[in-house]
Amino acid sequence: MAGNSFGQSFRITTAGESHGPGNVVIIDGVPPGIPISVEDLLVDLNRRKPGQSKIVTQRKEADHPEILSGVFEGITTGTSLAILIRNEDQRSKDYSDIKDKYRPGHADYTYDVKYGFRDYRGGGRSSARETNVRVAAGVVAKKILDAAFGGRVIGYVTQVGHLKAEISDPTSITAAQVETFSDGSLNPVRCPDHDLARQMFDFIDTVRKDGDSIGGVAEIAAINIPAGLGEPVFDKLKADIAKALFSIPAVLGVEYGSGFGCATMRGSENNDHFVAETSAESDTPVIATDTNRHGGNLGGISTGQPLVFRAAVKPTSSLLIEQPTVTSQGEATTIRTKGRHDPCLLPRFVPIAEAMIAITLADHWLRWRAQCAAAPDRTHHI
Amino acid sequence: MAGNSFGQSFRITTAGESHGPGNVVIIDGVPPGIPISVEDLLVDLNRRKPGQSKIVTQRKEADHPEILSGVFEGITTGTSLAILIRNEDQRSKDYSDIKDKYRPGHADYTYDVKYGFRDYRGGGRSSARETNVRVAAGVVAKKILDAAFGGRVIGYVTQVGHLKAEISDPTSITAAQVETFSDGSLNPVRCPDHDLARQMFDFIDTVRKDGDSIGGVAEIAAINIPAGLGEPVFDKLKADIAKALFSIPAVLGVEYGSGFGCATMRGSENNDHFVAETSAESDTPVIATDTNRHGGNLGGISTGQPLVFRAAVKPTSSLLIEQPTVTSQGEATTIRTKGRHDPCLLPRFVPIAEAMIAITLADHWLRWRAQCAAAPDRTHHI
Amino acid sequence: MAGNSFGQSFRITTAGESHGPGNVVIIDGVPPGIPISVEDLLVDLNRRKPGQSKIVTQRKEADHPEILSGVFEGITTGTSLAILIRNEDQRSKDYSDIKDKYRPGHADYTYDVKYGFRDYRGGGRSSARETNVRVAAGVVAKKILDAAFGGRVIGYVTQVGHLKAEISDPTSITAAQVETFSDGSLNPVRCPDHDLARQMFDFIDTVRKDGDSIGGVAEIAAINIPAGLGEPVFDKLKADIAKALFSIPAVLGVEYGSGFGCATMRGSENNDHFVAETSAESDTPVIATDTNRHGGNLGGISTGQPLVFRAAVKPTSSLLIEQPTVTSQGEATTIRTKGRHDPCLLPRFVPIAEAMIAITLADHWLRWRAQCAAAPDRTHHI
Amino acid sequence: MAGNSFGQSFRITTAGESHGPGNVVIIDGVPPGIPISVEDLLVDLNRRKPGQSKIVTQRKEADHPEILSGVFEGITTGTSLAILIRNEDQRSKDYSDIKDKYRPGHADYTYDVKYGFRDYRGGGRSSARETNVRVAAGVVAKKILDAAFGGRVIGYVTQVGHLKAEISDPTSITAAQVETFSDGSLNPVRCPDHDLARQMFDFIDTVRKDGDSIGGVAEIAAINIPAGLGEPVFDKLKADIAKALFSIPAVLGVEYGSGFGCATMRGSENNDHFVAETSAESDTPVIATDTNRHGGNLGGISTGQPLVFRAAVKPTSSLLIEQPTVTSQGEATTIRTKGRHDPCLLPRFVPIAEAMIAITLADHWLRWRAQCAAAPDRTHHI
Repeated sequence: MAGNSFGQSFRITTAGESHGPGNVVIIDGVPPGIPISVEDLLVDLNRRKPGQSKIVTQRKEADHPEILSGVFEGITTGTSLAILIRNEDQRSKDYSDIKDKYRPGHADYTYDVKYGFRDYRGGGRSSARETNVRVAAGVVAKKILDAAFGGRVIGYVTQVGHLKAEISDPTSITAAQVETFSDGSLNPVRCPDHDLARQMFDFIDTVRKDGDSIGGVAEIAAINIPAGLGEPVFDKLKADIAKALFSIPAVLGVEYGSGFGCATMRGSENNDHFVAETSAESDTPVIATDTNRHGGNLGGISTGQPLVFRAAVKPTSSLLIEQPTVTSQGEATTIRTKGRHDPCLLPRFVPIAEAMIAITLADHWLRWRAQCAAAPDRTHHI
Repeated sequence: MAGNSFGQSFRITTAGESHGPGNVVIIDGVPPGIPISVEDLLVDLNRRKPGQSKIVTQRKEADHPEILSGVFEGITTGTSLAILIRNEDQRSKDYSDIKDKYRPGHADYTYDVKYGFRDYRGGGRSSARETNVRVAAGVVAKKILDAAFGGRVIGYVTQVGHLKAEISDPTSITAAQVETFSDGSLNPVRCPDHDLARQMFDFIDTVRKDGDSIGGVAEIAAINIPAGLGEPVFDKLKADIAKALFSIPAVLGVEYGSGFGCATMRGSENNDHFVAETSAESDTPVIATDTNRHGGNLGGISTGQPLVFRAAVKPTSSLLIEQPTVTSQGEATTIRTKGRHDPCLLPRFVPIAEAMIAITLADHWLRWRAQCAAAPDRTHHI
Repeated sequence: MAGNSFGQSFRITTAGESHGPGNVVIIDGVPPGIPISVEDLLVDLNRRKPGQSKIVTQRKEADHPEILSGVFEGITTGTSLAILIRNEDQRSKDYSDIKDKYRPGHADYTYDVKYGFRDYRGGGRSSARETNVRVAAGVVAKKILDAAFGGRVIGYVTQVGHLKAEISDPTSITAAQVETFSDGSLNPVRCPDHDLARQMFDFIDTVRKDGDSIGGVAEIAAINIPAGLGEPVFDKLKADIAKALFSIPAVLGVEYGSGFGCATMRGSENNDHFVAETSAESDTPVIATDTNRHGGNLGGISTGQPLVFRAAVKPTSSLLIEQPTVTSQGEATTIRTKGRHDPCLLPRFVPIAEAMIAITLADHWLRWRAQCAAAPDRTHHI
Repeated sequence: MAGNSFGQSFRITTAGESHGPGNVVIIDGVPPGIPISVEDLLVDLNRRKPGQSKIVTQRKEADHPEILSGVFEGITTGTSLAILIRNEDQRSKDYSDIKDKYRPGHADYTYDVKYGFRDYRGGGRSSARETNVRVAAGVVAKKILDAAFGGRVIGYVTQVGHLKAEISDPTSITAAQVETFSDGSLNPVRCPDHDLARQMFDFIDTVRKDGDSIGGVAEIAAINIPAGLGEPVFDKLKADIAKALFSIPAVLGVEYGSGFGCATMRGSENNDHFVAETSAESDTPVIATDTNRHGGNLGGISTGQPLVFRAAVKPTSSLLIEQPTVTSQGEATTIRTKGRHDPCLLPRFVPIAEAMIAITLADHWLRWRAQCAAAPDRTHHI
């Protein structure tokens, strides 16, 4: 298999390129009986789509999804659910300038080596355009998490260049806070610290005017996820979520909980301690931890604490600045990208990252059901 | 599937627990004709095994492998290759103290929730003991990389607590430098900067005497890997390697190339530039990059530059210091681990991480062969 | 995963229902560099489509494919190839008569039990309508087999009711003979014995006029397939081809070589004997068998002899005759299908069966490449 | 992957050869909490093992299993369950006679072509010896079916050569009837028609004395299997069971329900009709069919009626009679197998076929749980 599928019990398979007719996703394993509509899909697609503000790419893409199968009378049937998003802004242009040049930081060279040639009209399959159908599939996954246990996934930008937000409690962040300022206007950077968000916006705009780009970090939390998801050994929840995030273009690093900060910590500092929480609703105490340096994962399995992951996203490789490179024949040349790229990938990265984590969790939820729900006689915490 | 397999075309499946009869790996997809012996396996198993120095666990495990199948007259047959490593040091002891307590930082609680009960004699399936058969499988993978294109994987420790080595060129690090000091004595920390290695050793020993533990970072490089490995979209090489590393217990973060450092960089700083290198051996120029901030991956596919990954490893959770926790019934209690744990996981982490990266690369090499070697008519760089 | 994918290295994933917008297939693992066009796809799609003669269903479906991705300038790129076929003849009608009744021999009841409800407008996902995209994917697979080793797959009808053809040598059957009579007119039954084909046609027409249907058998041969395809143990070539054929609606039996006839044979009668054939082209003798009761498979691996499989296909379950059944509430009722079903499935089954066998062989060819082509040093017969 | 795994949610992976140290199976996805012991495994292993009567091979193999992992205090833990069966009767002998000869009907030639060489001491990986661990895994699967819904799988021989039993109702056949005669003595052929069983025994013994072998047919029924197992399209229950049966050496044909007999039937004869059965236990009528020509499968999904499959098994290829063949260099020669082969494979085939069907059903049961048990709000028949 050539890597166009993700997940096991809840599996998405995608196809499509930046300059072809469109992108399509087939979702296999959707439970029957879940309401889903084009409007549901548009919520997240609109968060990802180009042209939201002047600090993202100005390409024109409606990103309007068509549900091809798997939904009858507004609810999922349990059979494979396909969604098609046609490309619209495929400008007819002269590609002779980039046809034979290897763009720095892009997949032009590696595709040429791997396949013997490439679709030179753009990124082809390597373009982040393919992530639009991932976002659509993510909406279906989010619906499952919500229906099954009220789970939700929320992402936001925590760092752009040297500007870094400190988020002490992911559960306190609201979707409204990420998407809009208090006056209801768009929060274009998706940083929940609004003062910092405005500074980030200005900084990105400065970089944009320089014809350059800037990197950053996003944090994504999954909240109300029950303990018990994730598999021992290879399919640890942390491992599958890390793969999910690294499968997104431009991600150079992933960490959870104390992350790289653990390198300077002692065990006595890094360990969280189990505590028993009593509640009005139940006599049985709920077992929790006093802190969450473990980021909601122990032994590869969710603990019931918020899952908290961070991803480092590189500065966009396409620049308006002239850069040295070579042609496919190895001749030295220069290249300067013409137009319409994101000066900072982070704002549009957020819904993509949320989608991939939601998909991973839906998959592990179904996998947990397969094995553990089938146990003949047991007392189970969930 | 409950997560006990890794890889697609080259796939390992494992079983075994810390206190059961032993661990076993079945490797599916091994090419025929590769020489492999118990002695080959022991080279890396000995690098991973307990008791190498006073800064690692003092458990006694011979870790002697038995090849059960897939090898005939010393070479692989192409059929599934199974390796069994029996456990030896399963001390018979009184578990009543830990049977009902949730050890901080361990999988006791999550296994209880997931499965309804657990093997209380130790970590069971969550113990890093299962990584011994991964290391054995890694030896087979390393043989494939070497036979196919002279590829090699080398890991080393770059950080323990605040002590941090700067490694500018991974290709200059030798296995001898990692394993031994210049006088031939063991380099117990596996840091290639020998002065720092000695400081790290002393620091770990201090932490050990405190009954505490310390975290760190290891870097693993894969060298002489041809361009073209890795798949677009979900099975990007970076994504599969990240999953491979995160599947190892205690890993809290993974990055490659400029990693989290990219967050503060501009595109004009982070982009590597393609250059054409001429060689005495060939008239065709070889396309390379002038720098390697992309860590050998572009578009999820190897570029031919060294693959350079770093993993953050948390301090061991088992401490000789008393820690607060709860019982499975939610009663507050304390726990103090008796004995024999690694005060720093990094030295023994290195061969495990090498193994997982070698396995991932062998898998992607075979996958590349399946699809691209079958192309009917093409001019290929490799 | 809910069973909407087939294959490993060459994998198809499908979605779509009889009364939804359309059907789509994503093919993962297509080697780069293979010419493919809509016209290529239409060749087999036209062999499968309704309305070819009066003995097949008279529904109107153009079955016109759109290639959504994976092809650039007429050749495959190596990335996932998606094909969409929109439904056209979705008659708006009154479903109240069948909405609550379980049609005998159909999946109405089992879908209701499995999913809790069903798309009552027709077969939904269980309809053989989904096989149109399988046929499209089969064209891609056939191209691979042809490009790689001149392999071809040919199917034909050998039995309809009591009328049974004796085909002694599948390699002598031509596509022209299956598709047309000697005067160039359509051979609507696809039986290569033209006298018998005419009798079969008349018999099917009689059954059709009775409002009834009739079963039959098709034989499918794969010719010029090299020895060495297929995997030991579970993914034997015979096992994967059998699964491929049984995945087609209405198949009740599959056999190869001497098949069920082996039950009355002694080993001394059933064994084929190896012989060495010399050729003008090579000094090395080619090893073959004197007879082909093994149907081209030994130990689950192809021998280089023609692969010869037969599938038994049941009479269409939809009848114009009134049949007793129950409603979903368990009340006794009767049902009579209105219109437009195939009185005999065999003629349209042939291209579907060919497609599934071609897909299986392409998959095993790529899998063989992955593992065995990677062997470092070997003398290989191919 | 090289085909050494079977199943998805309940997956077995095997390794081992006829003349190596032993065979091992890893079972992934076993639900926690199921009691399993070595004694449980021995029940079916003893039905499969050599030396049960004079009409099966006289090799000496204790086939004693060791549970390596996945069971703690007698119950399954939910982690991967490994079982090792060491080989014992690996006679040291002179292989020079068969080393270079291709045995008719065996995999010697195909392995040589595929892998470039083979383990010439016997069948190696192609030997049916590997089925012993399948039978052990089948015991675990049978336990799951029984615990989940009281399901059971029963197989028996229906045909040996021209001797053919008519079994009208598989649900009436008892395990005791298959295994023993009414006087308690062994029923060595495993045909439930005891008169015919004795004739079959005599016939096989005659064939054995001739140095020849004979083919036959076994029927395997799965009873008390709920409606709803099996997936639309590719992983139809019939397709996965057919693959399971064809993965067993020597199987040349598989059919279910009316099978190949459907070719001569009209739809009005072949269709079963739905009926509603009332019971004392429930007010809700149970929907069933009046007949079972559909063999318990409709649309690829179980209907709740008994699943009834038949497999044709070829006569053993190893004969005491001299047969013509060629050497690996293509020189004409003859071969005569020395000793200890089954003159008829059917009696020992029965527990292997049962195991494979039980494994397939356990897998589909878990898959059903993953997807459909997760549906948020539905009324379900089960």
